[in-house]
Amino acid sequence: MTEERVPIVERILNANDQLAEQNKARLDRAGVLAVNIMASPGAGKTSLILRTIEALSGSFRLGVIEGDTAPVTIDAEKVLAAGVPAIHINTGGGCHLDAVMLGDALTRLEAEKFDILIVENVGNLICPAAFKLGTHSNVLVASITEGDDKPYKYPKMYRNVDVLVLNKIDLLPHVQFDMDYFRRGVEMLNPGLTTFLVSCRTGEGLERWTEWLAARRKR
Amino acid sequence: MTEERVPIVERILNANDQLAEQNKARLDRAGVLAVNIMASPGAGKTSLILRTIEALSGSFRLGVIEGDTAPVTIDAEKVLAAGVPAIHINTGGGCHLDAVMLGDALTRLEAEKFDILIVENVGNLICPAAFKLGTHSNVLVASITEGDDKPYKYPKMYRNVDVLVLNKIDLLPHVQFDMDYFRRGVEMLNPGLTTFLVSCRTGEGLERWTEWLAARRKR
Repeated sequence: MTEERVPIVERILNANDQLAEQNKARLDRAGVLAVNIMASPGAGKTSLILRTIEALSGSFRLGVIEGDTAPVTIDAEKVLAAGVPAIHINTGGGCHLDAVMLGDALTRLEAEKFDILIVENVGNLICPAAFKLGTHSNVLVASITEGDDKPYKYPKMYRNVDVLVLNKIDLLPHVQFDMDYFRRGVEMLNPGLTTFLVSCRTGEGLERWTEWLAARRKR
Repeated sequence: MTEERVPIVERILNANDQLAEQNKARLDRAGVLAVNIMASPGAGKTSLILRTIEALSGSFRLGVIEGDTAPVTIDAEKVLAAGVPAIHINTGGGCHLDAVMLGDALTRLEAEKFDILIVENVGNLICPAAFKLGTHSNVLVASITEGDDKPYKYPKMYRNVDVLVLNKIDLLPHVQFDMDYFRRGVEMLNPGLTTFLVSCRTGEGLERWTEWLAARRKR
């Protein structure tokens, strides 16, 4: 029975990757930059998106795709309140977005209208790392309060991202967090990873992140 | 094709539940209390376990089962350093423990030797809620720094637990967290849920949690 199941899984993964390539080709034809933001629950994905909207919505046509495991549109409503088009994907209990869901959202949001599309994945450090969406950059938002051991404990996520945004640095004086230990873990898995230290609460460090994103779009 | 897959999933879930019942019967025969601790990455599961060991290892024979998504034994080593037997389950990228894994760990750890077994599930607010293990209580560790909207966004987890430990209350002065909004979300999903407000860093509030756990064992 196990032997029968393996090729089925293989085909599903391949189908996802093929659809991810189709999503990317569609975005490229329209000149749209798409970034996939992943994190633990509460690390600050939505806060980072709202800060990014503040900084860039005057210069770029931004759109946001919000993935959630439940039919709760809290995050999408925050984005809409900030004046940016947003769409909510309810995974129905699923622990990650996939390329099918993104493809559907691209159509419903009319992706071609935008310069930059920000995709907020489901809050989870495990499953989202295994499913390509067809976005151009995979961004991990980590937070100081999660602890300095997370690269060691969630290696697949840290290994597969293109950018790391380390949030909540304003809380460094109030928690135990060994930055050297954290950095060594990241460096072991993903040498030279582009990293931004920020506080979405105070605004510290965010200019470098938004400059990076804007430059990525202009290329 | 969907019609063919549904009954397969059904059988897998039933098999898990059956094995969970076997695990529970085994624990009951030996008079062992087992608790399943779930949380986001970094909410403080391991810190809570270490504080619990401090408080209760003089009075109870404690054992710990550490679930992780990677072959990284950081947490199990911390428990061993605190003088308590521990075993590490590597889910190999899987996002939750299941009853098969727990059953195997019970045998390897010789579960019958203990009064209280603490199971640390994989850091994830989604998948662990869907798999019974056969433990007597499901405990959710939430943290102030994750934000006050988490009950609304992860309803299945909040609905299915028996106890909530809200950790990192020492950081309340430093973050935005609307306790009333959080509590309303919890109450809507899980009315009257036993809740402990604690700080594993300062020790505040932990006596009530450890007293609850000790009383649960003595019944």
